[in-house]
Amino acid sequence: MTPTITAFERSPDRGRGQARDMRVRWALEEVDQPYDVRLVSFSEMKKPAHRALHPFGQIPTYEEGDLALFESGAIVFHIAERHGGLLPDDANARARAITWMFAAVSTLEPPILERETAVLLERDETWHEKRLPRVEDRIRKRLADLSAHLGDADWLDGAFSAGDLMMVGVLRRLNGSGILDEYPNLSAYLARGEARPAFKRAFDAQLAVFTAASTS
Amino acid sequence: MTPTITAFERSPDRGRGQARDMRVRWALEEVDQPYDVRLVSFSEMKKPAHRALHPFGQIPTYEEGDLALFESGAIVFHIAERHGGLLPDDANARARAITWMFAAVSTLEPPILERETAVLLERDETWHEKRLPRVEDRIRKRLADLSAHLGDADWLDGAFSAGDLMMVGVLRRLNGSGILDEYPNLSAYLARGEARPAFKRAFDAQLAVFTAASTS
Repeated sequence: MTPTITAFERSPDRGRGQARDMRVRWALEEVDQPYDVRLVSFSEMKKPAHRALHPFGQIPTYEEGDLALFESGAIVFHIAERHGGLLPDDANARARAITWMFAAVSTLEPPILERETAVLLERDETWHEKRLPRVEDRIRKRLADLSAHLGDADWLDGAFSAGDLMMVGVLRRLNGSGILDEYPNLSAYLARGEARPAFKRAFDAQLAVFTAASTS
Repeated sequence: MTPTITAFERSPDRGRGQARDMRVRWALEEVDQPYDVRLVSFSEMKKPAHRALHPFGQIPTYEEGDLALFESGAIVFHIAERHGGLLPDDANARARAITWMFAAVSTLEPPILERETAVLLERDETWHEKRLPRVEDRIRKRLADLSAHLGDADWLDGAFSAGDLMMVGVLRRLNGSGILDEYPNLSAYLARGEARPAFKRAFDAQLAVFTAASTS
């Protein structure tokens, strides 16, 4: 059964693929599973029909028969559990890959989200200029630790896994900030993720939505 | 094999059980598994020996034979996968319980963390008084959605699961803020979680660490 995911009708990042549907598209491409996309507008996202799928009125959601999921991490994990290629077979390595999935959304993403919120909602406040560098330093603290862990390895723990997919998805939110450039091995890690054919197919698919919307 | 977890040598919350080891202790108590605790100081947490277990120099970690994990969500999931009682048997219900685990750390916890950071690090800044209510409004947005989803149900999706354990663990970080009181069904949900015998055993165990440290 072909699953259906939801994505923004109009990409707020102008097709740069930073919305969370990108992680789900990428996972589905890694395991070579076709999927349908239902585009939702910002107003539709807040209506009861969409909230029945996603209590917080966001994207992405994932529908497959009578299963409905939300949260990109949970959806990626669901895909990874059912199809080979995103989680190691060895039980300990699998548990560690899942650890990196949680680390991506729970340890790396919060300070990155805080920066996005500051730039989006507090840009015109008197405190913004003084406060932003501090928020960015909190991001750097995490990035320095991640960089030390990665060292000169290609991926976080052995072969590419759903943990890397989630981490690259989170780190991509820093695109355009310049912060990642301070950690050459993390920049190379990000580039390695983005160079995967499955990433490229997913990226092109979400870009096509933006291109179609902006020429229609 | 009895697993060993790490926890703060001196609880920064004075035994109120808001550190993330509490979630792991609670999960182990729910599935009736004994565990050992190794207490670490703030300086030990940043040293190479601990960083080899936890790249971000935090607690908790989980060691079991040659397996070493970090991230409370990943550890709780590992425990839930290996022992009955924290994840439903039905495949779809299991996937939804995992969704709530991710929702706890990825959707609810970030604005709550942002508030903690503001209170802890920006309390004396000129902007704090004006900014804090905005941060709290971002928390309320999430809580309102969660409250609407929960309605008058006992738990987030059928029986108590690892999703509820993680969500209660995250919501407990608001203890003392008064914000949760604005959502009576969420306050009752929190109380329901804290009333579970396994929660109480876990709470008492972490409190005993604080009591011993403060009388030694």
